[in-house]
Amino acid sequence: MEQVFDWLDAHADDRRRAGLSRQLRPRGYDSDLLDLAGNDYLGLARDKRVAGAAAAATLRWGAGATGSRLVTGTTELHSELEFELARFCGTQSALVFSSGFAANLGAVTALSGKNCSIVTDSAIHASLIDGCRLSRAEVAVVGHSDPAAAGRALSTRRTERAIYVTDSVFSVDGDLAPLAELAQLCRENKAALIVDDAHGLGVLGEGGRGAVPAAGLAGAPDVVTTVTLSKALGAQGGAVLGPRRVIKHLVENARSFIFDTGLAPSSVAAALSALNVLKEEPDRATRVLEVAQTLAERLKAAGLSVSDPAAAVVSVRAPSPDAALAWSNDCRAAGVWVGCFRPPSVPDSISRLRLTARADLTEGDIDRAVDVITRCAPR
Amino acid sequence: MEQVFDWLDAHADDRRRAGLSRQLRPRGYDSDLLDLAGNDYLGLARDKRVAGAAAAATLRWGAGATGSRLVTGTTELHSELEFELARFCGTQSALVFSSGFAANLGAVTALSGKNCSIVTDSAIHASLIDGCRLSRAEVAVVGHSDPAAAGRALSTRRTERAIYVTDSVFSVDGDLAPLAELAQLCRENKAALIVDDAHGLGVLGEGGRGAVPAAGLAGAPDVVTTVTLSKALGAQGGAVLGPRRVIKHLVENARSFIFDTGLAPSSVAAALSALNVLKEEPDRATRVLEVAQTLAERLKAAGLSVSDPAAAVVSVRAPSPDAALAWSNDCRAAGVWVGCFRPPSVPDSISRLRLTARADLTEGDIDRAVDVITRCAPR
Repeated sequence: MEQVFDWLDAHADDRRRAGLSRQLRPRGYDSDLLDLAGNDYLGLARDKRVAGAAAAATLRWGAGATGSRLVTGTTELHSELEFELARFCGTQSALVFSSGFAANLGAVTALSGKNCSIVTDSAIHASLIDGCRLSRAEVAVVGHSDPAAAGRALSTRRTERAIYVTDSVFSVDGDLAPLAELAQLCRENKAALIVDDAHGLGVLGEGGRGAVPAAGLAGAPDVVTTVTLSKALGAQGGAVLGPRRVIKHLVENARSFIFDTGLAPSSVAAALSALNVLKEEPDRATRVLEVAQTLAERLKAAGLSVSDPAAAVVSVRAPSPDAALAWSNDCRAAGVWVGCFRPPSVPDSISRLRLTARADLTEGDIDRAVDVITRCAPR
Repeated sequence: MEQVFDWLDAHADDRRRAGLSRQLRPRGYDSDLLDLAGNDYLGLARDKRVAGAAAAATLRWGAGATGSRLVTGTTELHSELEFELARFCGTQSALVFSSGFAANLGAVTALSGKNCSIVTDSAIHASLIDGCRLSRAEVAVVGHSDPAAAGRALSTRRTERAIYVTDSVFSVDGDLAPLAELAQLCRENKAALIVDDAHGLGVLGEGGRGAVPAAGLAGAPDVVTTVTLSKALGAQGGAVLGPRRVIKHLVENARSFIFDTGLAPSSVAAALSALNVLKEEPDRATRVLEVAQTLAERLKAAGLSVSDPAAAVVSVRAPSPDAALAWSNDCRAAGVWVGCFRPPSVPDSISRLRLTARADLTEGDIDRAVDVITRCAPR
């Protein structure tokens, strides 16, 4: 009976030989590493107002939502967050999920189905890909940020209904999808547009309203946006934003909504509080972009192969998975924590350091980061 | 451009005509309804120790995990919870996910694949079904709790590797899978066994260790268990428990683990605290079962069609979706909150009231519940 999992050992050996082993590295609460690896773009996860609101909500509402959203798992806090998210992003309605992953699964599966075609960018997030796989729709994958190919795929589809699915800011290289152009293409082809704005909310658009409003698409009746509450908003969870009838449909049909426990009250309250901070301090959004662009320019000036950041994510190419891992480990040993993205977390098999800007990084932090990353770079 | 979502309105009309409309009903924090609808089986979601630990963790660690588990999203709290969960349930290792839904997707997909057959009970949870759909494995669905059919499907499979996937306690009727018998069948057929113990942990087995230890399968090298942190443990999240090499494999391969933000520290701390309460007060587990059996016996004595509860869930059949909805609404108007399960949340299209027992229900609560449910029953 031991044997049924023997294949896992061979699989692990293969990964080790390919330089693709991964392991969890627990952090302490008082780590003094300079964090350029997390997605807390606005520096709000540990903001006293945000953490305080989360703690107070736990004491008032309890530690868990106690049930699925359609049974006991919807509190007045959930409704308030949905109202405020929709208002902030300029859509009719919003629906909170327990994660951005679940929000993407729910939006893609419930809005497509057997009689629908899905056209996707080749670099979309894993959760959107899994949504497509679950959808039973006809799926066509087109080149990364290639509107002409997207248009061809949409216009030659065999079903009446169609959806184009894309990230706004791609998570690996931090580049921006041509959303306005894609929306126009969708309209010409009578298709809906689903945009994952996980890395845009809180960073792009006026006051951090996101990439979809920035592209002039706020409140569009044919556009659905998904967001996370766990990045710029410093909490946990995800949401789908869109026309009222879309949200109503998700409540009644999205399996990752119906069959999941509601988001914990503390995370709901944290996201609500972070949204309020962002409204009061809109400069946080512009600061993130400044930090990202400064980081990219200075690393490029030092001779590294660096992406042009459209939002908080800056990616730096590494020659191999092993070199990327050694580079990030050396940075960490020197006090700077950067992400190390290797297959299967990259769309093109090229390993990278992935740096994330934060609104609360100082000029001194940026100097230190650039110095360490450059000094530890592979020769 | 309005038209792309016109089909949603027709779809909503169909649901309404079939009596299958659903809507969210936000609850206040001070609701005085008697809750027989949630999954807070041990009454721990609002326990002062549990909520206090969650609030303190938020203030210390921040409101969110800030990144995926393989980047910044693993705190020492996550590791501590994984150690304690594994020790409590008698497995080598454990891995915490952001939801039970994500844990099921991760376990099923990462442990199967193209060269594997999956045999499943027809009444498994939606998240396991979605895991099967995502798995690319050959999937065979056999009758509910039918070990003979399971054995036939396993022995006639066309792949070397195979997995049998089942709930321990089925979420709709609360009945128990024949786990020991299924494990024996799996061994005879060189297959692994994946058990979703979402409704068993905290309720069944010695001190609430779950249905898998209760079946004599704790620590078995060919068994993988998934659990939720959002039911008996009153928090949010899920976990996979199993042999060390299985957990290592999930860390490196489960997409719903790798590409998701880590569980919020407050939820991790709440689950840890709830586990400690359960260890100190093991009678909570036995009390849940007593309450469920009392509820079932008394409702049956009143002439209703009631399931035999193996754990906390008691289901009562209704003549139609509309009748189930009216019945549950009438109960609610009379102060008792019960679940109303209609398609697609039921495996056999039969609508039901779904009642859940809690360790902290008093005899007076039970009297009131039985009185209201009986009084509101359809004639």
